[in-house]
Amino acid sequence: MAFSRKQGDPKITGMSEQDILAAIRFDGAGLVPAIAQQHDTGEVLMLAWMNREAVAETLATHRVCYFSRSRNTLWRKGETSGQVQHLKELRVDCDGDTLLLLVDQEGVACHTGRRNCFFRAMRNAELVEIAAPLVSPDALYGEGHSHG
Amino acid sequence: MAFSRKQGDPKITGMSEQDILAAIRFDGAGLVPAIAQQHDTGEVLMLAWMNREAVAETLATHRVCYFSRSRNTLWRKGETSGQVQHLKELRVDCDGDTLLLLVDQEGVACHTGRRNCFFRAMRNAELVEIAAPLVSPDALYGEGHSHG
Repeated sequence: MAFSRKQGDPKITGMSEQDILAAIRFDGAGLVPAIAQQHDTGEVLMLAWMNREAVAETLATHRVCYFSRSRNTLWRKGETSGQVQHLKELRVDCDGDTLLLLVDQEGVACHTGRRNCFFRAMRNAELVEIAAPLVSPDALYGEGHSHG
Repeated sequence: MAFSRKQGDPKITGMSEQDILAAIRFDGAGLVPAIAQQHDTGEVLMLAWMNREAVAETLATHRVCYFSRSRNTLWRKGETSGQVQHLKELRVDCDGDTLLLLVDQEGVACHTGRRNCFFRAMRNAELVEIAAPLVSPDALYGEGHSHG
């Protein structure tokens, strides 16, 4: 997957972009998993995927942009729901095949209306819900939407 | 990829196993990404992959077992290095395609000898190392090994 460089965008500097992109090992589909963690509390919010363009845009704008595998397009987190993620720091793991995004999450990260996506836990040999929605998905997306 | 059930293993109960495995959406290769987080500090330690057998074994033994994509076999974390991960809780995300493992990490999680794998960060438009090894990889694996 070729990186579609936005010529003339002043916020994307050659140095940071090349530096980070060279360190990332994108998979065969051109993607890398990215963990979003609330920067001050340590709460793990979600995992999603990024392609080169999503990484570059996120570094340029400091608003987290993923790549939606189901919609096959860039997914600017919060563009529909308003629940945006502000990037505080981007980290790369030892093998370069996973990103950790330290973010400041506005509102809720999960499309179900919960603060984070990991609200089902194995307890006493059963999978149970450990968090309730803070907001209705309909309020986030209107009826008929499921993500954003 | 068929789940190779171990008949007669008393620690794997049908209930928990079926419950959790039914909730997980393994990818085309039979794998799911698993985030390991230190249960008490919130530190994100690493991301690795699990297949059905790794999930079942981890739930049965409470010692984290991954699936090594490079070696194409089960990877019992710490089996070579002694840096094992004790499972405190396993969580499943909203879509069932990511796991969050709350663990108690013995020693260091990263094969480089660092506490966690995310020791490179973008700061001032450069990728910099923000943590030093706590132990030599040679001390963990002996010379000639790279993981475990």
